[in-house]
Amino acid sequence: MPKPDIIRIAQAIFTVKDLNASKEFYVDLLGMNILHEENDALYLRGVEDREWTLKLEKCTDGQPRVRQLGYRVRDEASLDALLALADTQKLPYRWEEELDRPKMLRLQDPFGIPVSFYHEVKTYPWLLQEYHQHRGPGLQRVDHCNVMVPDVKATTDWYNDQLGFRLSEYTVDEAGDWWAAWIQRRGGVHDFALTNGAGPRLHHWAYWMPDAMSIIKTCDILAGARQAEKIERGPGRHGVSNAFFLYIRDPDGHRIELYTSDYITVDPDFEPIKWMRDDPRRQTLWGAKTPRSWFEEASVMEAFEGGVQDFKAGKLTGIPQHVI
Amino acid sequence: MPKPDIIRIAQAIFTVKDLNASKEFYVDLLGMNILHEENDALYLRGVEDREWTLKLEKCTDGQPRVRQLGYRVRDEASLDALLALADTQKLPYRWEEELDRPKMLRLQDPFGIPVSFYHEVKTYPWLLQEYHQHRGPGLQRVDHCNVMVPDVKATTDWYNDQLGFRLSEYTVDEAGDWWAAWIQRRGGVHDFALTNGAGPRLHHWAYWMPDAMSIIKTCDILAGARQAEKIERGPGRHGVSNAFFLYIRDPDGHRIELYTSDYITVDPDFEPIKWMRDDPRRQTLWGAKTPRSWFEEASVMEAFEGGVQDFKAGKLTGIPQHVI
Amino acid sequence: MPKPDIIRIAQAIFTVKDLNASKEFYVDLLGMNILHEENDALYLRGVEDREWTLKLEKCTDGQPRVRQLGYRVRDEASLDALLALADTQKLPYRWEEELDRPKMLRLQDPFGIPVSFYHEVKTYPWLLQEYHQHRGPGLQRVDHCNVMVPDVKATTDWYNDQLGFRLSEYTVDEAGDWWAAWIQRRGGVHDFALTNGAGPRLHHWAYWMPDAMSIIKTCDILAGARQAEKIERGPGRHGVSNAFFLYIRDPDGHRIELYTSDYITVDPDFEPIKWMRDDPRRQTLWGAKTPRSWFEEASVMEAFEGGVQDFKAGKLTGIPQHVI
Amino acid sequence: MPKPDIIRIAQAIFTVKDLNASKEFYVDLLGMNILHEENDALYLRGVEDREWTLKLEKCTDGQPRVRQLGYRVRDEASLDALLALADTQKLPYRWEEELDRPKMLRLQDPFGIPVSFYHEVKTYPWLLQEYHQHRGPGLQRVDHCNVMVPDVKATTDWYNDQLGFRLSEYTVDEAGDWWAAWIQRRGGVHDFALTNGAGPRLHHWAYWMPDAMSIIKTCDILAGARQAEKIERGPGRHGVSNAFFLYIRDPDGHRIELYTSDYITVDPDFEPIKWMRDDPRRQTLWGAKTPRSWFEEASVMEAFEGGVQDFKAGKLTGIPQHVI
Repeated sequence: MPKPDIIRIAQAIFTVKDLNASKEFYVDLLGMNILHEENDALYLRGVEDREWTLKLEKCTDGQPRVRQLGYRVRDEASLDALLALADTQKLPYRWEEELDRPKMLRLQDPFGIPVSFYHEVKTYPWLLQEYHQHRGPGLQRVDHCNVMVPDVKATTDWYNDQLGFRLSEYTVDEAGDWWAAWIQRRGGVHDFALTNGAGPRLHHWAYWMPDAMSIIKTCDILAGARQAEKIERGPGRHGVSNAFFLYIRDPDGHRIELYTSDYITVDPDFEPIKWMRDDPRRQTLWGAKTPRSWFEEASVMEAFEGGVQDFKAGKLTGIPQHVI
Repeated sequence: MPKPDIIRIAQAIFTVKDLNASKEFYVDLLGMNILHEENDALYLRGVEDREWTLKLEKCTDGQPRVRQLGYRVRDEASLDALLALADTQKLPYRWEEELDRPKMLRLQDPFGIPVSFYHEVKTYPWLLQEYHQHRGPGLQRVDHCNVMVPDVKATTDWYNDQLGFRLSEYTVDEAGDWWAAWIQRRGGVHDFALTNGAGPRLHHWAYWMPDAMSIIKTCDILAGARQAEKIERGPGRHGVSNAFFLYIRDPDGHRIELYTSDYITVDPDFEPIKWMRDDPRRQTLWGAKTPRSWFEEASVMEAFEGGVQDFKAGKLTGIPQHVI
Repeated sequence: MPKPDIIRIAQAIFTVKDLNASKEFYVDLLGMNILHEENDALYLRGVEDREWTLKLEKCTDGQPRVRQLGYRVRDEASLDALLALADTQKLPYRWEEELDRPKMLRLQDPFGIPVSFYHEVKTYPWLLQEYHQHRGPGLQRVDHCNVMVPDVKATTDWYNDQLGFRLSEYTVDEAGDWWAAWIQRRGGVHDFALTNGAGPRLHHWAYWMPDAMSIIKTCDILAGARQAEKIERGPGRHGVSNAFFLYIRDPDGHRIELYTSDYITVDPDFEPIKWMRDDPRRQTLWGAKTPRSWFEEASVMEAFEGGVQDFKAGKLTGIPQHVI
Repeated sequence: MPKPDIIRIAQAIFTVKDLNASKEFYVDLLGMNILHEENDALYLRGVEDREWTLKLEKCTDGQPRVRQLGYRVRDEASLDALLALADTQKLPYRWEEELDRPKMLRLQDPFGIPVSFYHEVKTYPWLLQEYHQHRGPGLQRVDHCNVMVPDVKATTDWYNDQLGFRLSEYTVDEAGDWWAAWIQRRGGVHDFALTNGAGPRLHHWAYWMPDAMSIIKTCDILAGARQAEKIERGPGRHGVSNAFFLYIRDPDGHRIELYTSDYITVDPDFEPIKWMRDDPRRQTLWGAKTPRSWFEEASVMEAFEGGVQDFKAGKLTGIPQHVI
């Protein structure tokens, strides 16, 4: 069976309770750029993105969620391959359409994660060199997503085996069970990460930042706006990925990571980096502790037939040490 | 005779041909903050400034100029001392009033420079920690002014002897004649600098920046707005002052320096640093050459009775080597 | 009685258990520069310092301490004025000598803090522009010291009244009692800060850094050396002072702050900034919590007659909210 | 015919007149890391490199040169494909061996450029998170190489057609002739760039930097060491690639670029960006002029049979405007 050629993680669709509050957060404070605006939806992008990468929709039932995570694929043949995979594995799927994306194959992976795949997309001139139009910290481009799942190893294996992802780093507990994994298609550290926990739920959605100072600036801006409570964790340096990071929470609690300065993984003999779950250097190279919420809270996901996807507890119990 | 206690350089008033063009430059691109706006004037400040520090007035005769440079003094007694000095030295003077500054002693120094001194001023809450309101590169506070004068040594001596300035650095040519001087009241490298050349004319007006990256960002913003021609020199590291700098020109040609990371000069045994005019490290520590315009162009100043102050050629001829 | 003219905080002398361990910390990791090295002492400085600013001495009794904090004064007359003050107030004092500083007036202030004052000092060429010799994060110059004292208001008043310090910012509790104060001589936010707590003990000794990224780099370096446990708090942005900061602990527990980007306080009508003790923005503008150790641990000080100065509990009990 | 799967540009070998002078430049000032040191050779790497990426050899005939540029390939099959290509196109080739690289296929491309390809390599733990061992500006990893060639279009076509490179950006003159091209394998802006000029000669060899400030720091370090004359161009922001850059010259004149913050090119519909040769934004987005040497000087390359490769003038005459 031919394999799909997945290029990269490319988009997310969130529902939010108050589109104006979200707009203030993403546009006024974070400086994301509006590509399209409708009554009930905002289509946002970073300055390097040539297409919208985050759609915010007005939530209709009071329960904000992640409607889907979307990957760009190389060609129509990749969509065919995905369709064949869905058939073979009896995964629920359907064709969907979004603005600028006439043909998206939406399916539910075996773990309940709503994913979509598309090849065709309408693109727009980027804003990368329109520096006079950049505002706030200047989010640059989609980097990755991170999903909490009950069984990290099984989920990782499926994505690697069926979709051709490659492992960059992983975390195990004392017994050797997998706590977390970082997998990629694009040659960076990850397009997708899996973390043990009640799921499937979206742990975070991440944008690449031009440098560490733009992340520091995000903290200052949120503090200036008297919204420092939206800063959940960081800034700091991850042991995993070596990235400089910040985690913030949007008005609905969706978690956004601002991320920069990881490394490349293109070499054929790249050897995945293994971490022990309770190594204090793993979470933050500087040894900083992580707030408990970071291990417990995440965004629910849309079920294939609508409504909220059921989720179940992580296979591994407990959370890492070095928690506040 | 009691000496005036001058605190720091504090304000400038420029006339400009097109207030809208200036507003685009200073407010939209540089991100300066409007404290007051009138039909024919804009009062601007940096995020740390608690008062306006740059006033732009509509030019009425087609010749943009510097109306005055203003210093803050410690007390009324300092104004008395300045008045006595003006009387003694027969310097033209008068009392003037500006918005928020009810009582400014304006005088013409012996070299034709229009300077004003004030103690009383209405201040406003700063914007330093209102980071969500910062725009563009985030000019922080007035740092210094630089004036081209025909006789650097004589001008420096007068400011040091009569007004209590202290020398930080100076430049001499091969013959030992003074080419430039940096003098200060505030404990930094300079409130005021003198450069040999046709004058008196304002060479530049400078703002302190939060860091070097905010200066880099200014270049990107001007480039984004297709106004890169407004970048005249830099970014670079000065040998003199050790500052990281950028020189830009406003729509009327007034030169603005963005400046950061110099050093403190408060010690009583601080020994002024001497540079040779043609030392390539002096202008830019990295050896970069300076455009000829930087040595030749400057803003004319208002004469005491109105109109433009006559100016005469610099005592030293030629310009430094390391010029493009 | 004439007032002393104190220029700035200028030096500290610490005793340490293991001079090699301290050298590894301050020189190898922080990149401080050795000005002199003796069998039992190291004299260190930042790249802008023209004299040693931190002396580390081998501790002879197993109890590391702060031997003294030293201020530079403008002239001999200032030493005379301090001597007269000591006589009048019956403060213990004596003349001491240190390398490069032939004549230091050491006294014990009314609160038990060992302070010294000197005018004459041998200076050396700075390293500011010897960038090829900078190592690690590049500590630049002494910025300030912070002492825990039982009665913040009384201590602040004495320094302001007797030594001419000026108040920049202060913190009060709900009842209006003073929790902390920042006072200055040099025109910045502080040369000296007072914090409520068991004292007198040195809370921290601080160096000015070239920019926020050099502070981030310090975290990375300590992490690289597997000494992340030496990072106690930060990096972050203080509400008080607006500085970007990091607190680290040396091998004997002496706390060092790396500090940058505060503001100037030279204006005569500068109005001290008041904070409420439990305002979450006060400690860290971003709302980050502070570890308990930061409120409880500090370095003991040398008594005038030798040994360790007795200290007593702070007047205010409890510690601020927003503590881990 | 199967295509080789080239992963990325991976190494260069330069000859140098004075290995000690080169060591001072690359190791002491730039902070590159020595992986191996022999009597007549140094093997250097950046902190992210897991293998040596720049070998410096003592030059035996007084003419420093580039011995070869090396690409990593995915597998042995790729070497077979390259061998078949060499056979088909009658390109000179031989197997070579280097330290840690037992089997390199060296060939001379149709334009006279000495290139090598290898799959097997001995790797070493990286230094990326050994921050305490980083020195100087901290070069991170190989980014790309740039070669002056007489016929940019023909060379680009061959690399794209035969080796599977993809075009990111290109420059044409008024007549539509190609002046320069940037081509890639790794998903960034380029592994390889071609510039019109007398060639084949190496224009520059480039390392990725952690951020713009580490590039600024390089200027300061060279200035501190009184070697500012080694700074040839920059720092600045390229229009092409959007990278923040600096060009420096090693003691033998080999040109090194320090480079950061470009963008990704992985999307299947990525459309190459076209620039006009005399667009002032192309070279430096900020409009800065380029020194003439940058267009004229380059490193000669080794001929397949030894000695220096003959080279001929560029097809296009003249150089871009905006030159100093």
